[in-house]
Formats: sequence, C-alpha cells, structure tokens
Amino acid sequence: MPFAVPGASPMIKKFSNNPILRPEEVIPSRPDFEVLAVFNPGATIHAGDVLLLARVAERPLPKPGHVATAFLNLESGKIEPLYVPLDDPDLEMNDPRVFRYQERDYLTSISHFRVARSTEGRKFEIAEGPSYLPATAYEAFGVEDPRITQLGDWYYLTYSAVSPMGVLTALARTRDFLNFERMGNIFAPDNKDVAIFPEKIADRYYAFHRPSLKHLGQPSMWLASSRDLLDWGRHEFLIGPRPGKWDSQRVGCGAAPIRTQAGWLQLYHAADENIRYCTGAILLDLESPSQVLARSEEPFLVPDQNYECVGFMPNVVFHSGLTVNGSDELALYYGAADDKICGATVSISKVLASLREQ
Amino acid sequence: MPFAVPGASPMIKKFSNNPILRPEEVIPSRPDFEVLAVFNPGATIHAGDVLLLARVAERPLPKPGHVATAFLNLESGKIEPLYVPLDDPDLEMNDPRVFRYQERDYLTSISHFRVARSTEGRKFEIAEGPSYLPATAYEAFGVEDPRITQLGDWYYLTYSAVSPMGVLTALARTRDFLNFERMGNIFAPDNKDVAIFPEKIADRYYAFHRPSLKHLGQPSMWLASSRDLLDWGRHEFLIGPRPGKWDSQRVGCGAAPIRTQAGWLQLYHAADENIRYCTGAILLDLESPSQVLARSEEPFLVPDQNYECVGFMPNVVFHSGLTVNGSDELALYYGAADDKICGATVSISKVLASLREQ
Repeated sequence: MPFAVPGASPMIKKFSNNPILRPEEVIPSRPDFEVLAVFNPGATIHAGDVLLLARVAERPLPKPGHVATAFLNLESGKIEPLYVPLDDPDLEMNDPRVFRYQERDYLTSISHFRVARSTEGRKFEIAEGPSYLPATAYEAFGVEDPRITQLGDWYYLTYSAVSPMGVLTALARTRDFLNFERMGNIFAPDNKDVAIFPEKIADRYYAFHRPSLKHLGQPSMWLASSRDLLDWGRHEFLIGPRPGKWDSQRVGCGAAPIRTQAGWLQLYHAADENIRYCTGAILLDLESPSQVLARSEEPFLVPDQNYECVGFMPNVVFHSGLTVNGSDELALYYGAADDKICGATVSISKVLASLREQ
Repeated sequence: MPFAVPGASPMIKKFSNNPILRPEEVIPSRPDFEVLAVFNPGATIHAGDVLLLARVAERPLPKPGHVATAFLNLESGKIEPLYVPLDDPDLEMNDPRVFRYQERDYLTSISHFRVARSTEGRKFEIAEGPSYLPATAYEAFGVEDPRITQLGDWYYLTYSAVSPMGVLTALARTRDFLNFERMGNIFAPDNKDVAIFPEKIADRYYAFHRPSLKHLGQPSMWLASSRDLLDWGRHEFLIGPRPGKWDSQRVGCGAAPIRTQAGWLQLYHAADENIRYCTGAILLDLESPSQVLARSEEPFLVPDQNYECVGFMPNVVFHSGLTVNGSDELALYYGAADDKICGATVSISKVLASLREQ
C-alpha cells in the first residue's frame, strides 16, 4: 500500500518498497566488472508485465591507485577495460563522470540496458545479463537513458549513444525485448532526452528532444516531427528553463506523453542552481503540440527521501518511464540519485489541476 | 590578371583586386546603423552573373560610453537598437562577439544577407539594401554564413539562424534572389556550416553539418540525408580535427561539393590552436559519400595577406562560396579576417593531386 510521503507534494505517492532496484541486486555483465548504478529506466506494458528497461552502469573492478573505465574497442568489437594510474601525468580528472587521458576523454563507467519485469509494477526481477549492449562506434562509451514508445506491435527505444564523437540520440525497436533492431542516429549530437509520441498527429510522428548548447541558449525542450521515425525536421522550441524557479537551469522530457481530454500531458525533469533534479509537467494542444497550454509552477516529484538525496548524484529524481493504471493513475519509474530505481504513483487529474495556464 | 602570392601554396591564386568587398563600400540598412563587416558569402551563377550572397554585420552607430547592439523585437516585428552603458553593473563582456546584460546574452552585431553581382566574378557591385533580413524568432540575433545549392530552378540557402534559443540551421529558397521562401529549421541547435549536395544520391538529398558540442567530442563534419530537404536523418560522423595539424581544433564545410571523376570534392575550413582558419579539402566516394577517400595534409588557402591577417578576427580565411570556371578552375569566395570578402582561383586537378589517400 503506498502512502503519502511527509514533506512531498500530496499528489505523489512514492512506493513503500523504494528503491525497487539497487545496484547490489544487479549481476555484472562479466566477472571482472562491478555494477555502479541501475537507474533512468524506460517503462512499458509487455506480455502482461510491467517492463522496465533499466540503464545499468558498470566499470572494471577497482585496482588500487588506478582509475578504471571500459569502452567498446571498435577493432576487436569487444568491451575492454582500461586502467590508468592515478599518478599518470597524462591523466586529468575534474568530474566524477568523465576523465581525460592522453588528450582523449573517457567516461568513468559504461552503460547498457537490462530488462526488469513485474506482474504488479512494484516488485521487479531484473535479468541476469544485459538486454542491449553498446555495439556501434556511436555507442563506444555506452547507451543511456532509454525511453519506450509502443506503436502498433513494435516498442521503439530512443536513447543516448555516447562516444568520442559526442552524445547523440539513436533509435531501435523490438517486439519481444530479446531481439532489437537498430534503426540509426535520429538526432545529431549534442542531443538527448528524446521521447516519441504514442500516435501520429496529422500523419506525422512527433518527438521531444533536448539539445545541449555550447554557445547561446540553455538546455531546453524542443519538438520535431517525422514521416517515418528516421528523418526528423520542423524543429521548434517548446520550453526552456525559468530563472528563479525549480526549473531554472535545464529541462528535458520524461517518458512519452499521455493523451488526456485536456491535451498531451508531458512530464519533464528539470534542475535548479543546486543541481537538484525534480519532475513537473506541461500540457500541450492535442492537434498542435507545439502550443504549450499549461505548466507546473512547482514540481510534484522532488528528491526528499534518503534514497534520493544520497548516492552517486545527490538530490536527483529523474523520471524516464511510466505506465497508466486505470483512468486516472500514473505509475512513474525514475532514477534516484543516479544509482537506483524508484517508483511513485500520481493522479492524472490532480497533476492537470495543478498546472498553471500559459 | 591573378598572380601567385609569395609564401602561399602555389596552387592558389588570390585575386589581385582583393578584398573585393569591404565594409566601407556597403550602405547600412538604416541611417542609424553602421556596417562592421561584409564576409562569408554564398556564391552561385544567376542570370549570367556571378552572384554572391554576402553576410553583412551591422550595429547601431556608436554612442560614447556604451556598448551597442540590435536585435529583432518579436513584439514589434522590428530590428531595434540596444545601448548598454559600459559601467552598468549588469553588463558582462568577455568576447568581442558576445556580451551579457541582465542575465541575457546578446551578440555585438546583427547580420543580414545582401546580393552582390559581377559579370566576370572579380569586380562586384553590392545591393544598396538588404536582400534577406532576420524575420523569425529563431533569427532574432541575425542570419549568418549562407551556402547556396542550385537544384533545378531553385537556389536553396542553408544558413545559421541565431537567437537566444541557440544557433541552428534554417533553409530557404529563391528563384530570383528578390523573393525568398522560408522552409524552416532543418538542423537543431547547436549546428551550422550546412551545405546541400547539388544532386541526389540514390534518391536522397545529402548535406554536411557541423554540430558544436558541449560535452564530449570536437567540432566535426557530419553527413545527413533527406527525402525532401526538410526532414533529415541517418547522421554519420565524417571527419574531425586532427591533433598537431592545421585542422587541430575545428572543421566545417565550405560551399556545396563539386562532382569530379574521382569523387565529391569538398572544401572545408579548419582552425588550429592559434585560431588560424585555413581551407583544405576532402574527397568522398560518389555513391557512398560517407566514405572519405582522401584529405588535405596541408591547407591550400591560408591567411598570409595583410587583408586576411588584420581585421575583426585576425588570421581567418573562411571559404563559403565557389563557382566552377570551365573544366578545371574553381573561383573561391571567402571571408577575410571576418570583415571583408576576397576571391581566389584554384585548379581542381591540382587540389585533387595534393590530397592524401585515407
């Protein structure tokens, strides 16, 4: 039975069994690796189960006096460990997620996707091995943060493909979550946080995307559309950060939007000056989804539990998957502190009522 | 008569009448503005003339003790000057091209495009007024660096649309260079240096693009393709900077590629650690343009003349337009020091012979 969490918005009910997946429950993909994090899952209903496609971040087992990482070696076609002595003069470390060695950048972990299933959406069993491993030059540093959209019989994954060439968004599809078909790069780097709408509008597919900008501009949500899911255009700015608010620094979409009578309800994550990540929502016109009808003044999913405030990146809730239960409930699946997966339910009507008209 | 410039590569012949366009020859778009620069032109043959579509950068006339800029006010629909006192505590200036005021970024100039014509390609007459002015929210800070590709009766322009939302690439077309049809945003920010191939390959249009990356990766040339010029996909990495060489920091395409028997010849600009911009070339497979067959070890167009070494951005040659003269000569049109336009001729066969197989 979920219960209202003290201090949190009353419209959200976090699962009593949070975190529902922790790194220590996940078997590494190979014996010489360790799992650092399981987080930021896509979610859908598949074969009667609630299915999560979790991001699993790993690194080679630690070796004293070294920083360790792994990457897809394109010549061997294998994921290979790399150990760099901490006193190597060619090593530069300024960020817990990235280091620089011999004038090349590396991530401190490599991520793959793994299926977890549940009959009731609360207690999940995660697969013993990877479901989707990095396999192309664009994925040499890993695959990250999948969103799932079902279109007919197919489940489409949009995810970040990370490599020395940048962070771009790739597309793949599956029917069974065992065999996946790669469909290529759909948004050029730097671009992430892409979710495809669950139906066409006026004969075009729509998707949110989130360019990361080097020069002018801030990390904002954009909308694009496509005839075939492969070629995308008609890029339009949708929403950006708002100074002084909970979403002052960056915004990006969560899971795919939900059709409601009032419009497309789209949850989004945002960070403020303190790199505190929360979740709010926007409401978009059903026929013209670039029209923003309403927006959260305050987030309804905030990091206020120990498991959200302590971890790899403290004070982060990052919603990327959801399922719809009945007529008014959403089950949200989210990364907590960038290393665990948690769940919460929220009332659609309460979220809609909380939005302020734009 | 052109002559070989001492110290430059012998295969390039800079025009003896360089610079062929200077800011002082350009009439401002309005009496309260001044022209800072005329540079980075697209080029084509139109109605028997060599036509340049030049970028003209302007700012409001200087006022002592102030920094001046102008931007498209979306409410009035007009380009409006903005003067900020240099001692205003809300002003931050660190770059000659950008300043920050009241927590917003501004450029120090606003650019439009202007047609210049020549019967013989050396002596140009520039229009008395703008040909293409910023007109959309995505162009609020200006339009920049057009490339022109002729496809049938239409001349397509790809250009940078600059606004507080970022730097993206927009598409427009014209038949007469008097009336232009805007076709929307084709590459999301940050993306610039886009040129469309002059013919389809296997029923798809191709274009180079150049994402500017915030996190991993360096400014590199990518290839994308499209069925209709509006929706683009199949993004592929093409070439990146090479450490220790003339193109060590950034690369981006010049004008649209030229079909040769050996392959697509594509000129590109690049900068090194000293922000010295030069031009070299790559050769791409005719059927599979993502295959790089050969590349310049050394640039053939380098800033070595006074008009290229002194100006708004010293030591910059930025090629963005060309015409083909006869069977073996290219006339290159380029920005010099980011404030004038120059020209040079080069032999196609000599460029091809200079490339090193990859």
